Amino acid sequence: MADYQAPLRDMRFVLEELLDVPAQWAALPRLAGSLDADIARAVLEEAARLCAQRLAPLNRSGDEEGCQWRAEGVATPAGFAAAWRAWAEGGWVGLSGEAEHGGLGMPKALAAQVEELLNAANLSFALYPMLSAGAALTLAAHADATLRALYLPRLYRGEWAGAMCLTEPQAGTDLGLIRTRAEPDGDGSYRIFGGKIFITGGEHDLTPNIVHLLLARLPDAPPGSKGVSLFLVPKFLVEADGSLGARNAMSCGALEHKMGIKASSTCVMHYDGARGWLVGAPHQGLAAMFTMMNYERLGVGIQGLAAGERSWQNARAYARERLQGRAPGGAVAPGLSADPIVAQPDVRRMLLTMRALTEGGRAFSSYVASQLDLARDAPQPDLRAAAEARVALLTPVAKAFLTDLGLEVCVLGQQVFGGHGYIREWGQEQLVRDVRITQIYEGTNGIQALDLAGRKLVADGGALYRAFAAEMRADLDTAGEFAAPLAAALDNLDALSDWLIERGRRDPREVGAASVEYLQVFGYTVYAWLWARMARLALAREAQEVFYAEKLATARFYFARLLPRIHALSAALRSGSAVLYEVPESLL
Amino acid sequence: MADYQAPLRDMRFVLEELLDVPAQWAALPRLAGSLDADIARAVLEEAARLCAQRLAPLNRSGDEEGCQWRAEGVATPAGFAAAWRAWAEGGWVGLSGEAEHGGLGMPKALAAQVEELLNAANLSFALYPMLSAGAALTLAAHADATLRALYLPRLYRGEWAGAMCLTEPQAGTDLGLIRTRAEPDGDGSYRIFGGKIFITGGEHDLTPNIVHLLLARLPDAPPGSKGVSLFLVPKFLVEADGSLGARNAMSCGALEHKMGIKASSTCVMHYDGARGWLVGAPHQGLAAMFTMMNYERLGVGIQGLAAGERSWQNARAYARERLQGRAPGGAVAPGLSADPIVAQPDVRRMLLTMRALTEGGRAFSSYVASQLDLARDAPQPDLRAAAEARVALLTPVAKAFLTDLGLEVCVLGQQVFGGHGYIREWGQEQLVRDVRITQIYEGTNGIQALDLAGRKLVADGGALYRAFAAEMRADLDTAGEFAAPLAAALDNLDALSDWLIERGRRDPREVGAASVEYLQVFGYTVYAWLWARMARLALAREAQEVFYAEKLATARFYFARLLPRIHALSAALRSGSAVLYEVPESLL
Repeated sequence: MADYQAPLRDMRFVLEELLDVPAQWAALPRLAGSLDADIARAVLEEAARLCAQRLAPLNRSGDEEGCQWRAEGVATPAGFAAAWRAWAEGGWVGLSGEAEHGGLGMPKALAAQVEELLNAANLSFALYPMLSAGAALTLAAHADATLRALYLPRLYRGEWAGAMCLTEPQAGTDLGLIRTRAEPDGDGSYRIFGGKIFITGGEHDLTPNIVHLLLARLPDAPPGSKGVSLFLVPKFLVEADGSLGARNAMSCGALEHKMGIKASSTCVMHYDGARGWLVGAPHQGLAAMFTMMNYERLGVGIQGLAAGERSWQNARAYARERLQGRAPGGAVAPGLSADPIVAQPDVRRMLLTMRALTEGGRAFSSYVASQLDLARDAPQPDLRAAAEARVALLTPVAKAFLTDLGLEVCVLGQQVFGGHGYIREWGQEQLVRDVRITQIYEGTNGIQALDLAGRKLVADGGALYRAFAAEMRADLDTAGEFAAPLAAALDNLDALSDWLIERGRRDPREVGAASVEYLQVFGYTVYAWLWARMARLALAREAQEVFYAEKLATARFYFARLLPRIHALSAALRSGSAVLYEVPESLL
Repeated sequence: MADYQAPLRDMRFVLEELLDVPAQWAALPRLAGSLDADIARAVLEEAARLCAQRLAPLNRSGDEEGCQWRAEGVATPAGFAAAWRAWAEGGWVGLSGEAEHGGLGMPKALAAQVEELLNAANLSFALYPMLSAGAALTLAAHADATLRALYLPRLYRGEWAGAMCLTEPQAGTDLGLIRTRAEPDGDGSYRIFGGKIFITGGEHDLTPNIVHLLLARLPDAPPGSKGVSLFLVPKFLVEADGSLGARNAMSCGALEHKMGIKASSTCVMHYDGARGWLVGAPHQGLAAMFTMMNYERLGVGIQGLAAGERSWQNARAYARERLQGRAPGGAVAPGLSADPIVAQPDVRRMLLTMRALTEGGRAFSSYVASQLDLARDAPQPDLRAAAEARVALLTPVAKAFLTDLGLEVCVLGQQVFGGHGYIREWGQEQLVRDVRITQIYEGTNGIQALDLAGRKLVADGGALYRAFAAEMRADLDTAGEFAAPLAAALDNLDALSDWLIERGRRDPREVGAASVEYLQVFGYTVYAWLWARMARLALAREAQEVFYAEKLATARFYFARLLPRIHALSAALRSGSAVLYEVPESLL
């Protein structure tokens, strides 16, 4: 596999030129004076160095070795514990953590790009710090002051790690079916009884303690999703001074054997009266989880982006070196035994597809991240509300669209290698196996589409959508050669949205029948908007640097070859739910 | 994983009702009187029994165990050798073999359905008999009488196995780059020197001898693809009476570690002066390989179909049992904790997509197989020529389209399972890993698209295409509710074909720029034609059996939700090669 080259130039382009995020930072009291473009560049360069030098080299060995279940605990692959220490000592686990408890307080727009670097280097490894950061975020928002002071500094320092414990065998998408019980212990704590599955980082050897945030039912819980509470359950009980006490009554019963992310420890967990502490209000566990949901879902989307970037880099390097056949129209390397396959139009089509989808995804994910920052930190309530609205609308798109495209890009990157893409040696097949989980976990992509089409569009009556559509439409005037196709795409999305709101209100089955295609059309249209904006910048600077000429050419490719996908999706969508329901029962 | 249920009812529908292949058999002198619908049913039922009972149970264990390289030879997983004996003793390896040498002489239309059963049960296992049958086919067509008499009976009986040895590290797609040498030995045989990679079944413990058909260069060979000859190279030399003699100077240096098909032995082979015998004329090796190419490529397409069928069966069973959430519009199982997820519109969309693509693929592959039979066995030269023309045109579509859809269907079937689709336990992830190779080997799908768009369309001037299009168009009159969309799809394909012929003649880069999308549009249009024909039959028989009502509903789903994909593909295709070539060199 080619060495990982962090795409720092493109990250700068997105952060500084496309989104002008440093100006946003300067206007946020929490960040003004402490963060600017230069600091952000230095942060990304340092993260890139660590990712390329320490984490990327463990990607394939981690896949080969996997995690091992042992009675004394789960062993991560060789090198992972040292890599964790390096990552933690750099402060990266607490990159976005609250300064009050020792976090670095960096905004999501920057952290999202660090996450891309981390995931591109080693997706399996990335899950450990990402889950820790997610657990810390939830604690910061919902735990009481005592728990926060006890746990957050150690999570931010990477001294301990975190895990999120939601799924049970009978409760995956539908968390209202959770059966794990929490019984009051009399001293303010609870005893947890039950089992969880698919617990990422539930048990491992990276840290001496692991902090589980776990959903369970109190004895008086109402049935369904309104009776689920959130608990903090540490692997080792923690004394008031932060030292470790007795082992808690919890254990990892087994590791799941998975298609990919084999160096990530995916645990079956048993809780046999383990002591836990309530986080937030009773029965409000799912609401508390939603605090971190937008961050986590964007983070999973970025995993899809990152895997695609890695696959694209490898495929490009291979296509330039691999000699097979001759270019149509005449040899381009007549002195060699054959031409490099990059001379073949179909290989170029695959490479440009990978590049256009990846760079579009980088722009999109950074945009959503910048809105998360505004939603939290903007002092003006109207700015915050507008940003919250964008985040609500775009988060399901970011999670599902980035990961669906992540699989497509990784499959293309494998295809460029021919037979060599199917064997483990080159790493391309691992990327396909690893990225596949991103379409499934943190809410399947079908669930994301339902969230977008059902809650964010139909139930909302289209207000969130119209506000965002107006923002995209405002760029039509400066879209130049792309104004006409962008306008057509926006008109099409408007029409589909109106159509779906009208149909979905009459029959809820119409929402689910259209949701996946609707999300896809939405995604391609947002990418068209961002590509038009990027092209406008690139056109103005084309003479300065070849980077801009590349950007412009990639924009043209996107509009010519990828945006037309909305035609098929829109036509399919409009056929409605009848073909799904007016069928014999035996058909399904 | 759910038990494999052979789709015998649908196979009968395709063979007997849609294609009326038994009438074709009755008109072919080679088959008349020896094969009819009843015999075909009995053959399929017996194959189904063996596949379900003997081969399917080894699918997951074979994946877990894989093949093992040992100095004394490659070991296949537990149970494979016994399964091979069962398959061979049933005569299945020689199912299509020449009766003269002990084969059963069955037509491809029947053998293709047996191949589907075999591959659905165990794709890794299937490769061993399929490669043997392919090697036998090549020998039957090109070897001299002595070699045929010596080798064919033993290959047909499964006493020995076969392997095809083409690829070298520097020669994959471009076989003109082959370096393996063959030096005359003075006694009519040759000494082979060189190495091959990706050799399926090159070494294993299923049979005492393995017959390699190998491409190499003679000392006087012209450079490139016109200097490649075909040789028979047995693992053990064979005495005139068929008994085994000395070990030949060839060895398996290593096994490839692959994404999937792990129970298939994929070998790095060394030939250190191994004795070989020329098959066919000197320097005509690639032409000889083409004899079996159409059969092998259809066979690989059927692997994609088969994996999809298996994934669909599993996904349907799971979706009916898995309880999560409630159906939109109200509970359908109010007495249970939740509704089965098959009540969700998006799950129905996934299942119907899987079903429509799989049943369309069964019809298509059986149609192509029936044309292979006509091309070989029809006594009338004009019938043979017409069938040969159809085979030439449709083979690349069958290989690429069936396998591209195979991946899509397997990914959907994994998605239906949510997190359970990502762990090995349920088998869905193995199907994704296994099916992925089918898009790559036997000519990547990009190469298939070039074959279709370049050789079969543009270079041919459209004659092959127009003849087949007329055949599809003849069914418009009876297409009923689907006449309008089918006519539009045929008009669109006509226009794209004309456009590509005109552009491609001016600039060969236009062919490769459009080829993949062109093949896809072609495939969806052919499926539309077949679905319209199937719907016509189903409509007439709807009251007889629920099978027909299901068929009709699936046809409606295909036209509403899947055929519209041609809009996007056609628009992308028409953008031409400019966006691939008018770009900075550094972009790719």
